[in-house]
Amino acid sequence: YPKVDLDTLFAAVEKAEVQWRKAGAEAWVGVSLEILTRINKRSFEIAHAVMHTTGQAFVMSFQAGCPHAQDRGLEAIAYAWDQLARVPAKAYWEKPQGKNEPLKMEKHYRIVPRGVALVVGCNTFPTWNAYPGFFASLATGNAVVVKPHPNAILPLAITVQVARSVLTEAGFDPNVVTMVAHDAGDDTAQKLALRPEIRIIDFTGSTANGEWLEKNARQAQVYTEKAGVNQIVIDSVSDIKAVARNVAFSLALYTGQMCTAPQNIYVPRDGIESAEGHLSFDQVAQAIAESVQKLVGDPARAVEILGAVVNDGVAQRIDAARALGPIVLDSQSIAHPQYPLARVRTPLIVKLDSTDDAKYLKEWFGPIAFMIATDSTAQSLDIARRAVTCHGALTLSVYSTDQKVIDEAIAAAEDSGVALSINLTGGVFVNQSAAFSDFHGTGANPAANSALTDAAFVANRFRVVQHRMHV
Amino acid sequence: YPKVDLDTLFAAVEKAEVQWRKAGAEAWVGVSLEILTRINKRSFEIAHAVMHTTGQAFVMSFQAGCPHAQDRGLEAIAYAWDQLARVPAKAYWEKPQGKNEPLKMEKHYRIVPRGVALVVGCNTFPTWNAYPGFFASLATGNAVVVKPHPNAILPLAITVQVARSVLTEAGFDPNVVTMVAHDAGDDTAQKLALRPEIRIIDFTGSTANGEWLEKNARQAQVYTEKAGVNQIVIDSVSDIKAVARNVAFSLALYTGQMCTAPQNIYVPRDGIESAEGHLSFDQVAQAIAESVQKLVGDPARAVEILGAVVNDGVAQRIDAARALGPIVLDSQSIAHPQYPLARVRTPLIVKLDSTDDAKYLKEWFGPIAFMIATDSTAQSLDIARRAVTCHGALTLSVYSTDQKVIDEAIAAAEDSGVALSINLTGGVFVNQSAAFSDFHGTGANPAANSALTDAAFVANRFRVVQHRMHV
Repeated sequence: YPKVDLDTLFAAVEKAEVQWRKAGAEAWVGVSLEILTRINKRSFEIAHAVMHTTGQAFVMSFQAGCPHAQDRGLEAIAYAWDQLARVPAKAYWEKPQGKNEPLKMEKHYRIVPRGVALVVGCNTFPTWNAYPGFFASLATGNAVVVKPHPNAILPLAITVQVARSVLTEAGFDPNVVTMVAHDAGDDTAQKLALRPEIRIIDFTGSTANGEWLEKNARQAQVYTEKAGVNQIVIDSVSDIKAVARNVAFSLALYTGQMCTAPQNIYVPRDGIESAEGHLSFDQVAQAIAESVQKLVGDPARAVEILGAVVNDGVAQRIDAARALGPIVLDSQSIAHPQYPLARVRTPLIVKLDSTDDAKYLKEWFGPIAFMIATDSTAQSLDIARRAVTCHGALTLSVYSTDQKVIDEAIAAAEDSGVALSINLTGGVFVNQSAAFSDFHGTGANPAANSALTDAAFVANRFRVVQHRMHV
Repeated sequence: YPKVDLDTLFAAVEKAEVQWRKAGAEAWVGVSLEILTRINKRSFEIAHAVMHTTGQAFVMSFQAGCPHAQDRGLEAIAYAWDQLARVPAKAYWEKPQGKNEPLKMEKHYRIVPRGVALVVGCNTFPTWNAYPGFFASLATGNAVVVKPHPNAILPLAITVQVARSVLTEAGFDPNVVTMVAHDAGDDTAQKLALRPEIRIIDFTGSTANGEWLEKNARQAQVYTEKAGVNQIVIDSVSDIKAVARNVAFSLALYTGQMCTAPQNIYVPRDGIESAEGHLSFDQVAQAIAESVQKLVGDPARAVEILGAVVNDGVAQRIDAARALGPIVLDSQSIAHPQYPLARVRTPLIVKLDSTDDAKYLKEWFGPIAFMIATDSTAQSLDIARRAVTCHGALTLSVYSTDQKVIDEAIAAAEDSGVALSINLTGGVFVNQSAAFSDFHGTGANPAANSALTDAAFVANRFRVVQHRMHV
């Protein structure tokens, strides 16, 4: 990819945004929708680009990288339009003056975009995590600079190419949307984020980088999704096999390299009740381990669920996690039948005790799960609540046949601010959220300062500037 | 006022907010509206409290301190309801599965308030500037701690008393709304702002304190209104007397101690065109000076417009400003016929040149105005635009009979992000904004990071936390 000089870039963006900023809500939303439509037509190409840059298996790179990512983009455009359309173009105002003529004014309201928006892409979901911010900013009239993760440039390069072509066709300067590709380890991201022109930043990535942005990019509205500790509380089940199958799939899917993948599984050390009678802690752990093993036992099938390890950090983390406690299920290497150079690893499950919080109360990004023995479900929920509050989380899951426990889990989720899935035993997995009906992130715990997508995500990307005069 | 121990206070608030947070949008909005209704019934008492704590003349302390402040509170409640009501309580979700039964889920959405909100009141408009944040936070389910300015406690103490009584009647713990009174110069404000329980802060005051909050109160959403440089660009007029009368009133009203009061008046050094022919710079300056003098010539009438000086800083600033340049109109002391101890000062007008930007490009809060000679209206607009961008402003005013100049002023206002008033010559003044049709502040320049009131002002005071299950 060509390297771009930032001063040259921003001079071009400044020139391009003049006309775009004045085009108005219908043009911004219309162009955004057309970009999305054309992206949709290139879904297979983008899916392959996502697969080869992220290590996702093809079905996921197609689903999550294309229609689901596009859904999230459409959702952002819809929310943007909803808020933009609430601002009237003008109002007539009258104030009675007793016996005198009333004061009469006309007041005009212009929507003024914030400025230039920066979208910082991530390695694992380059399109899914970038589209909400990209389209929320573009549909509210801002110019957008896209900075992909150095390992996952192509999916966003195609996206930017499509956007520029639609802008040109619509009579706008294509530099309304630009891309900055850079090498891993250089300081391009920081330099970009601190440019005074950048007034909005959407970021997905590590807690360290996200917090750096929140603290230092003070000239911008900063929307971040960072790390968290996702958890499953198992209290009681009617069908342990269905529970184990569902949990196993969540652990294996894309090698656990999802910001929504569960990590900590809390089970009372005295075991749980099930429809088939009492199950010991080890029986529950074993059921989940067996389900994982079954899922990844056939390499040809396994690689279509696992995909590949995205970077060295994940592989090293698996090795480090092995030393944390007794291994319930070890991570294995699998040879990919089609791509011999792909590094494929199955989930690792380690047994811990509730007192091992120094080990499990941080994110172990990758195919690493902990079966954690607790004193009781009450303790499980208490740990879960504090983990969300202190360390953040995107998902929480509970299994219980007791409505009282479910109500307590709902209360814990609402107090700590995390989305809760209850008794998932079928074809819906805690890692997955559906655009238009599931919020991704809540903005209420440290894992993310905003949600995809709500009014707060779009309403501050533009301002309203009025002028008034007598009539 | 009693001093409160903050640990004791927050323990009581934590207890009180449990029930309030769960009460839901209808209860939050209903209680807020009832509080506003009861505040309205105590308007005369509050008006006197505002008058004696701020130095406002009675008509203003009644108008701005009561119905207009209440309007702004109602506006905030309406915006809050508008956003709250857009979140559905639940949704039914179905996903087709080919020949199999579709996946079916029920998804529930709970509105979760951010936490405890802090409202930091100011000395000059204790109710008007506090009510928007107070009601925006309360109507979205947050508990509110009110910290009045040490010199203007009573108006907010009455407000808090009313709120607590309504809460009690409605079956809630009155500690949902509390007040912390403190002495000037102590560190109560900083201690309060950094409490981890505080998740929202609404602040009106100095740029230094506002920026300190934005930088340090990182645990909270911070909404600030700070200092700025308000400006009038005079290009051409049809009736210089009507212009001068309007400008004079804006300078004199409450001794210029309004965050919206104009300070810099730009006039081309070669003069302007008027319906009665060419007017020199000095003739324009003289017309405004004479109008001010006429307005404040009769002490009994003058004090009803000027009110009193709010603090020593303003009086000292007048003295300092006298030395800045040739005096067009000197500030005078007036004896208040009714309150002999009131310190009453008339506006000071100093003549400056456009090159004196070190003098005029900062806020001189109080009855201090500069007539600034520029090369041309184009230069006036250029200075105005840069002043808004770099130093912030709440208002900009332009006088011109030339539509091209007006269009340029609109462009300058929109580029820099400031509300523009055009050719005000009647009973509307640039200092005044009307709830429901004028935004106060834009959130687009350094004078304020938000506007009273828009969707962005309310939408991030609550979050949505969902739970989902199969049905």
